[in-house]
Amino acid sequence: MIIVFNSNQDPMLQQVVDRFAGKTDVFTHNERVAITGITIDDLTDDEQAAAVEIITDHPKAIQSSRLFHPETITIQTPHTTISDHSFSLMAGPCSVESKEHVLKMAAAAKAAGATVLRGGAFKPRTSPYSFQGLGEDGLKFLRAAADQFEMDVVTEIMDEEHLAMIEQYTDIFQIGARNMQNFSLLKAVGKTNKPVMLKRGLSATIDDVLNAAEYIAAGGNHNIILTERGIRTFDNKYTRNTLDVGAVPVLHKLTPYPVIVDPSHAAGHVDFVTPEALAGTAAGADGLIIEIHDDPAHALSDGPQALSPAELKTTFAKAQQIHHLLGE
Amino acid sequence: MIIVFNSNQDPMLQQVVDRFAGKTDVFTHNERVAITGITIDDLTDDEQAAAVEIITDHPKAIQSSRLFHPETITIQTPHTTISDHSFSLMAGPCSVESKEHVLKMAAAAKAAGATVLRGGAFKPRTSPYSFQGLGEDGLKFLRAAADQFEMDVVTEIMDEEHLAMIEQYTDIFQIGARNMQNFSLLKAVGKTNKPVMLKRGLSATIDDVLNAAEYIAAGGNHNIILTERGIRTFDNKYTRNTLDVGAVPVLHKLTPYPVIVDPSHAAGHVDFVTPEALAGTAAGADGLIIEIHDDPAHALSDGPQALSPAELKTTFAKAQQIHHLLGE
Amino acid sequence: MIIVFNSNQDPMLQQVVDRFAGKTDVFTHNERVAITGITIDDLTDDEQAAAVEIITDHPKAIQSSRLFHPETITIQTPHTTISDHSFSLMAGPCSVESKEHVLKMAAAAKAAGATVLRGGAFKPRTSPYSFQGLGEDGLKFLRAAADQFEMDVVTEIMDEEHLAMIEQYTDIFQIGARNMQNFSLLKAVGKTNKPVMLKRGLSATIDDVLNAAEYIAAGGNHNIILTERGIRTFDNKYTRNTLDVGAVPVLHKLTPYPVIVDPSHAAGHVDFVTPEALAGTAAGADGLIIEIHDDPAHALSDGPQALSPAELKTTFAKAQQIHHLLGE
Amino acid sequence: MIIVFNSNQDPMLQQVVDRFAGKTDVFTHNERVAITGITIDDLTDDEQAAAVEIITDHPKAIQSSRLFHPETITIQTPHTTISDHSFSLMAGPCSVESKEHVLKMAAAAKAAGATVLRGGAFKPRTSPYSFQGLGEDGLKFLRAAADQFEMDVVTEIMDEEHLAMIEQYTDIFQIGARNMQNFSLLKAVGKTNKPVMLKRGLSATIDDVLNAAEYIAAGGNHNIILTERGIRTFDNKYTRNTLDVGAVPVLHKLTPYPVIVDPSHAAGHVDFVTPEALAGTAAGADGLIIEIHDDPAHALSDGPQALSPAELKTTFAKAQQIHHLLGE
Repeated sequence: MIIVFNSNQDPMLQQVVDRFAGKTDVFTHNERVAITGITIDDLTDDEQAAAVEIITDHPKAIQSSRLFHPETITIQTPHTTISDHSFSLMAGPCSVESKEHVLKMAAAAKAAGATVLRGGAFKPRTSPYSFQGLGEDGLKFLRAAADQFEMDVVTEIMDEEHLAMIEQYTDIFQIGARNMQNFSLLKAVGKTNKPVMLKRGLSATIDDVLNAAEYIAAGGNHNIILTERGIRTFDNKYTRNTLDVGAVPVLHKLTPYPVIVDPSHAAGHVDFVTPEALAGTAAGADGLIIEIHDDPAHALSDGPQALSPAELKTTFAKAQQIHHLLGE
Repeated sequence: MIIVFNSNQDPMLQQVVDRFAGKTDVFTHNERVAITGITIDDLTDDEQAAAVEIITDHPKAIQSSRLFHPETITIQTPHTTISDHSFSLMAGPCSVESKEHVLKMAAAAKAAGATVLRGGAFKPRTSPYSFQGLGEDGLKFLRAAADQFEMDVVTEIMDEEHLAMIEQYTDIFQIGARNMQNFSLLKAVGKTNKPVMLKRGLSATIDDVLNAAEYIAAGGNHNIILTERGIRTFDNKYTRNTLDVGAVPVLHKLTPYPVIVDPSHAAGHVDFVTPEALAGTAAGADGLIIEIHDDPAHALSDGPQALSPAELKTTFAKAQQIHHLLGE
Repeated sequence: MIIVFNSNQDPMLQQVVDRFAGKTDVFTHNERVAITGITIDDLTDDEQAAAVEIITDHPKAIQSSRLFHPETITIQTPHTTISDHSFSLMAGPCSVESKEHVLKMAAAAKAAGATVLRGGAFKPRTSPYSFQGLGEDGLKFLRAAADQFEMDVVTEIMDEEHLAMIEQYTDIFQIGARNMQNFSLLKAVGKTNKPVMLKRGLSATIDDVLNAAEYIAAGGNHNIILTERGIRTFDNKYTRNTLDVGAVPVLHKLTPYPVIVDPSHAAGHVDFVTPEALAGTAAGADGLIIEIHDDPAHALSDGPQALSPAELKTTFAKAQQIHHLLGE
Repeated sequence: MIIVFNSNQDPMLQQVVDRFAGKTDVFTHNERVAITGITIDDLTDDEQAAAVEIITDHPKAIQSSRLFHPETITIQTPHTTISDHSFSLMAGPCSVESKEHVLKMAAAAKAAGATVLRGGAFKPRTSPYSFQGLGEDGLKFLRAAADQFEMDVVTEIMDEEHLAMIEQYTDIFQIGARNMQNFSLLKAVGKTNKPVMLKRGLSATIDDVLNAAEYIAAGGNHNIILTERGIRTFDNKYTRNTLDVGAVPVLHKLTPYPVIVDPSHAAGHVDFVTPEALAGTAAGADGLIIEIHDDPAHALSDGPQALSPAELKTTFAKAQQIHHLLGE
């Protein structure tokens, strides 16, 4: 049960908080104060009268719920607005491969309409013998390329130890699917105020996603972008994962956070990236994150799923048209 | 291995067929004749020279493969063309509930742009105590309603025993998800030449779908419409199933059959039907099948997922716009 | 809500049944009479007083529930008792391949301790071009082989059309995984009084299994044997399916039917059949059904998962020891 | 391709390694030296002659494969041997709750036959508002309890930052299911030489498990214990996860590491823990890890799945009998 007070009901509210200290969690949003861990019967008649709302059936992830936080959250980075009244493109190579290459990819991404440059410097590869990324050098190349084209940077953080270093170079922290329930890492980025792009885990339920977001929000950071990137199902012969387009409207209904779609990791094969990008858009996504490469056969990671720069351009143009249609 | 001959290579071809009688399967499509079950080394030099193509890596579902049947198949019913150069709507109530009700729903479906009226007279319900459908009376009501509005009928057949009866009333046989691998039933409809709408099973892989279609095609009936209707995954709290939008372009690449999307059973909840309908359209579907009801709370089955007539109209209008955009 | 009366409360009970005719379902088990579809508030005070039990939270599959039918059901065939106080082995080839072969396999099965001979005459193959079974000839060979070794027969029925014919030859009808929700077929076998071995569907939940059983029970046939045979999950590289051993104690808790395990289809590879057979036994299964072949490389179906006759013998001996241990 | 040399073929071997420096990985196990990244055609005739084995089809996780490391690995801690010629029990509370409680649980675990005491001090909870563990105090209580009963300690490490601290208190690091692909953490424990109990992720394939183990092995630490603890499937109504018993013999075939089973997290409900423990044992597990509590209703975490001390005793006794039977 959540019992909601107005913050200006201070005396009554304070009295409740004091009496149940240690038993309750107290959350504040604008003038709403939500108290959990007690029931309405624990309150005196006066206190009950002061409560403005009682929510009996609520998720554990209160701060990530529209019940607590009804207004949609807008994420603002220097060159990009991610929200339900915009439509953004993040694009770039899977891995930062070299200074020259990421610059070329940044030019291509920018030309297609992207305002955020993606690229991995620390790569979570299934095998320890696969390319693990260029590390801090990669971050430098990525930042320089983004700056040259007046773009923002999103890049993955894999452990707390790298936080301070990565924070210098990126505008948005990416938490990858495999780390979606790395709670130590979620707590760490929750203590910053930098936007966090949280990718859904391969077998994460919607409630798992909300609880993972809550770990970030609980630290005070509500700048969260949720990303549907395909889930693991019984069939991965033709597509690498199954894009759960239904998750887009479900998350929009339940949470105030923007939701973007990653068709590259969902599809896993270039033939299916564009249809899945458009499907995600039509389902209501607030943006797309897409991997590109000019020479997929020689990409250091995930070549088979990379769009060419030209494909990115036509795909995003169609996606924008679809997004525009939805709003009419 | 498939060895392909031209049908006008008759003497050589006949010689091969005769020699390997009982060991081979022979498939004919236009002037192409495909022989399986033997390898190229089984042939004489002359016979090898006569072969026009050798396909080493092919699916078991040969007739359902574009390797054998490259041209997209168009399904034509009196009022409807289902193909990659059209975009169709099938709509109607989950169950035929009464003569009056199905008539009202037909009017609504027609007004929204549907040319095929759907409605179940024999219902595959999880529980034996749930409403099982009106049976032949339902079929009569459905046919009459469709005729009044110059629409076609699609309705589910659950067993071979009903084939002759249902055939009189319907333009398209529906094979439901739970019967997708009811091979006796697939063989039975394969012997007719009426179109068959084959719904993907809850845990059917893409290859399972193709092999199920092949059971129908093997009987001589290539009038097959594949339907993605959501698969069973680890999360069904907010949506009933997971719409696998990636299956749409995958099936289009692999098979010549049209592919439609059923957002009603995928979503399972009215809030998510429209986003999933639009997502399926953007992924390239050739049409939609959507359940409607004017009073969902009192529907005899699947009320929670029914769109209202007004919602159907706006949803299909948006879907048509998206479909139009894709073709540009 | 289920309202339970004693059948000897006849006047009061009859009055209730008559008054709510058409709104209720009435189930009788021994002296217990369960009425559904009404609530306690629909009854007069006298009627309420006559009720012996009210069950508020119950499954739709009432007759398949221990709430209605607390005593474990024993299945008796001429040579076999399947129940919680016995441990049975069904074994034989995947398909009946010839008169001679099935006889040889029957001898091997009998020698290993099997009392039921399995073998498919009508085979539900994923592809229409795979061996579809010998049909009625196969049934004759199977029956003759079983009779020679004083064994019972279990064989799959794939459609209602074959019911009368198969009924002559078999002691137990098998409903295969792909037909678990072929409700027409379930109704058909429910009208006989021959035991039915119902295999769990590839993506059937426990509740789906119970409702499928209820379709049989609703026809009056409670001679049901449930079979866990592996479910479809995200990984089938090394085992064909995932044996859900937890389903064994879960089903035992929920239903009165015996539960057996099919490690052959779960494992899909001979190396893992024995460990899964023993695991199923240790989880409390009332028996095993195992495929054998003397020459797996040349089996007409499912060779890779067949145990040799010698392996069957040692596997069943170990399984019996484990079963014996559990009972101590 | 792996090309294997004998380490005493030093000149030839060194010549190959030097020539392909930067292109190859070199792994040494006893006198076997495996070189990857080149093909046999890259070698001179003399070098080819010196190769003792060529393995063409091999997993990326070479050091975790029996192809490279045929002998089963034995894990030895002060009081416990975990290997294929022993059968171990790890038991204890889900969380360390207090000094007194963990002592009581240690006594119960020891009395049932456990030689390793489990207990979480840092807990990976789905919600940030759930009990997160006692931290270092918990570790102290756990260590003291284990020492008093001459037991070893296994406890979860959730991030690299805690490594040095936890290392002081524990005999075995536990990597939890949610962190199975936290590659930074895997690398960190791989640099120690303390045994690591690696739990399978909720949707980790067998290959994912092997690659995760390889991250540890690549750091030089082969003291790895694999743990099957149930996977996420489409049905979690009655059991929390699906225990994949088939994974036990599959992993034993593929890797040299011992494999234990965690029936507590698989079952999620006390009624099904014992059957799943026995099933895992019968499938060939080398040990069990089981949660216990003397007052499950008031446990700080996972109460519903805790066995009582008495249940643990009878369960482990049966499991030992089954394990003994298998070895006969």
